[in-house]
Amino acid sequence: MDFPKKMKEKIVEIVKKTMKIGKDDPRKIWHAFKVGLALTLISLFYYYRPLYDGFGQSAIWAVLTVVVVFEFTAGATLCKCLNRGFATLTAGALGVGAKYFADLFGKEGEPIVLGILVFTLGALGTFTRFFPHMKRRYDYGILIFVLTFSMVTVSGYRVDKILELAHQRLSTILIGAATCMIVSLIVCPVWAGEDLHKLIYTHLEKLANFLEGFGNEYFINSENDEIVKPSNEGFLGAYKTVLNSKATEEALANFAWWEPGHGSFRLRHPWKQYLKIGVLARECACHLQALSGYFNSKPQVYYILLLFLFVPSEFQKEIEEACTKMCIESSKVLKELAFSIKTMTQPSSSAAEIHLCHSKTAVDDFKSILTTTETLVISNKLDLLEIFPAITVASVLIDVINCVEKMSESVEDLSVQAHFKKAKNEEFSSSSPEKPPPQQHQLLHRGIVKPVVDVDDAGGSDFVAIEICGGGEAAAGKAEVNPVVVKS
Amino acid sequence: MDFPKKMKEKIVEIVKKTMKIGKDDPRKIWHAFKVGLALTLISLFYYYRPLYDGFGQSAIWAVLTVVVVFEFTAGATLCKCLNRGFATLTAGALGVGAKYFADLFGKEGEPIVLGILVFTLGALGTFTRFFPHMKRRYDYGILIFVLTFSMVTVSGYRVDKILELAHQRLSTILIGAATCMIVSLIVCPVWAGEDLHKLIYTHLEKLANFLEGFGNEYFINSENDEIVKPSNEGFLGAYKTVLNSKATEEALANFAWWEPGHGSFRLRHPWKQYLKIGVLARECACHLQALSGYFNSKPQVYYILLLFLFVPSEFQKEIEEACTKMCIESSKVLKELAFSIKTMTQPSSSAAEIHLCHSKTAVDDFKSILTTTETLVISNKLDLLEIFPAITVASVLIDVINCVEKMSESVEDLSVQAHFKKAKNEEFSSSSPEKPPPQQHQLLHRGIVKPVVDVDDAGGSDFVAIEICGGGEAAAGKAEVNPVVVKS
Repeated sequence: MDFPKKMKEKIVEIVKKTMKIGKDDPRKIWHAFKVGLALTLISLFYYYRPLYDGFGQSAIWAVLTVVVVFEFTAGATLCKCLNRGFATLTAGALGVGAKYFADLFGKEGEPIVLGILVFTLGALGTFTRFFPHMKRRYDYGILIFVLTFSMVTVSGYRVDKILELAHQRLSTILIGAATCMIVSLIVCPVWAGEDLHKLIYTHLEKLANFLEGFGNEYFINSENDEIVKPSNEGFLGAYKTVLNSKATEEALANFAWWEPGHGSFRLRHPWKQYLKIGVLARECACHLQALSGYFNSKPQVYYILLLFLFVPSEFQKEIEEACTKMCIESSKVLKELAFSIKTMTQPSSSAAEIHLCHSKTAVDDFKSILTTTETLVISNKLDLLEIFPAITVASVLIDVINCVEKMSESVEDLSVQAHFKKAKNEEFSSSSPEKPPPQQHQLLHRGIVKPVVDVDDAGGSDFVAIEICGGGEAAAGKAEVNPVVVKS
Repeated sequence: MDFPKKMKEKIVEIVKKTMKIGKDDPRKIWHAFKVGLALTLISLFYYYRPLYDGFGQSAIWAVLTVVVVFEFTAGATLCKCLNRGFATLTAGALGVGAKYFADLFGKEGEPIVLGILVFTLGALGTFTRFFPHMKRRYDYGILIFVLTFSMVTVSGYRVDKILELAHQRLSTILIGAATCMIVSLIVCPVWAGEDLHKLIYTHLEKLANFLEGFGNEYFINSENDEIVKPSNEGFLGAYKTVLNSKATEEALANFAWWEPGHGSFRLRHPWKQYLKIGVLARECACHLQALSGYFNSKPQVYYILLLFLFVPSEFQKEIEEACTKMCIESSKVLKELAFSIKTMTQPSSSAAEIHLCHSKTAVDDFKSILTTTETLVISNKLDLLEIFPAITVASVLIDVINCVEKMSESVEDLSVQAHFKKAKNEEFSSSSPEKPPPQQHQLLHRGIVKPVVDVDDAGGSDFVAIEICGGGEAAAGKAEVNPVVVKS
């Protein structure tokens, strides 16, 4: 009875889904159009008589090649085309050779020898696909090699014109592959390399947005002593796509390896370096997952504690200020790095470095605050449980900053390997339109260090200089010398 | 000159790699053997004349089918075989229909109509592959559908006996697919479902091993006040494979869906539930990555601090004892869960629950220790920076325990959905051969609670009962009622 109604609902749903996919990535519609185009082009071999006369029934292999080989990205299509072409060539030659070799054993021995050869090559070829390096790049080639060899030797037993068969198969496959490559590279090409490039800087932006949102919302809410869920939930979920991106990134990097130079990417663009940044981004996303737990676990673990304990002390506010600074500054570093990759400009001596140093200063501030705790605890203003959430958040943030520093180094490496151009207007980068403060000004901003600097003889025997800021292996020049002076 | 030498080295290297792959998973050698076997079987169509006479040249499609369709796991092979079979059937029928439809337009119109049809179906089919649900299960089917339709319609324009062509193609493909299915299911079958099952409990075991190793090594070393790298680095790296397992798990679950019942797995085994446990395992691995950072960052961040600060106080030892207990107990829970999945026995009212409760008790202990800090700080025995590492480690461990609890619930769900059998000897499970202590005994073991229980009137107005242990939604019955009594 209501079958037409259900049918209509189903169709509306499918149309909506189609619209959504097309809207999210119009290149997918273009891809469908391109496959149709390549298929129609290859049909000409059949409809146009002279071509058909030349190839005969074999022209069907061209149709098969187009359908099987055409992939979404240009790199994947090239990978399959080249693999298919070379595999057919070598396996065809080997198959013809095997056929003549088997002929030597007479009418009785031929099928046995051919059978043994097919079994051996089939088993060996299949096993070769388990080698990680082969799997990554030549998996499809090995498959086609086994396929062509089996087909040529097996059908060679019955068909007399085996050379002609091998030649026809090779040429039709080459025509099919060439059609695919031309359509894929000329009509709205989808570059795997470009996708990888975009994926990586989008991931950095997602991490930056999370940190920014966390810094702005978490501590402001805890100051108001209310357990409020963040108003804008969007930034909380975005980082999760970063966590599970390994497979996508590696596939894209593999395909990008096959692509010719295009746009700002040369032939030997350091795609592997993108994977390294990807690994660090996932590590960072792991830490962010821990942070996001504090939004959720707060009610569960700290709710009652917060109710029973007093209003946040001045001390807690100080810690939270340091944490907010860590969040905001590391978010800015990530944004600068993402901007640097996006625009393919060198990040060196830019705002990223300054923000990195700022975030490290915030870490130092936090540690200095912890050392001054004792007096506060003695005057009974402080409960450890009260600052427990803030301390744990801070410890995660310190991990995040370490991770961001490594990412900064990786982006630096990438910029060298990929010959990023130098930024022209360093002051006017994406997130920090204001000119970065000069070195001296910045030093004076370190809340805790200031009073110590006021002392007359800072280098005297009363003071011990502890270098905390990341040790010697820090990439940024200024970040290396970052002493915190503590009274011994 | 040294070409033979290099060649020899290369060969030795390849042999070593082959030996390693074969040793790690002998099923891979079996798989190669199976593909060779299936290929040789299908060659019989050519060598054995009656079969050849029946199918003619088309028999080559059977060879092609075997090479393309044979996959490592039975599920993947079945998925491809069934997809290929049904797609060929429907597309073949549709192709013949299209051919007769195009005939109506006369000799001139026929190629144009056929071209339009091929373009439309090619483009539509390609676009359909972007729908996530179709992609997951019917990707290969759509590919073959487009392929067969194009081949039948295009070659139908030249070949007169189109029905015979479609019929031959269908029957040879069915024969090829049947050969693959039979060989794949009979000769040493590799079940995707079994692999997924094994993967999930191995992951839980890896997480458990890390926690056990961490609990044993980290705190013992910090007690000796030395920064010693753990002696057994193995457990530190193992959890990393858990982090990036999403793609593998989802692929296995998809293939497992196609498999018939086998061993202890029925036809509709709840494979999706395994994915849920996998998500939690990855979340847990994220926390472990944070923990592992403390092995590495210790020298960097805390080294100098530890040198300048005093020997660990009694207080620090107390915290570390609580942390070690959290580690060990949650490790035991994970081991119990892994054992429960491995043996397919119900985990309810077993050792897992008791260990979960133990670990929660350790969390309570830790929090109680924190509340007693003030007196220690006032007597100037304590520096916050000194306990900072322990506190942050503890906070991560609390997250781990929350995660383990969720995992315990998921395994419980799995055991119900998959009809796990009831354990016969609950006392003699894998990791805890000793009989679990009775409830009363366990209560008395809670270090911090004990002195409070000694007070005459525990329910009097001088005390406030705070329920910390996980709120009402905890699955384990005993874990729900877990009050910590604190002096107000």
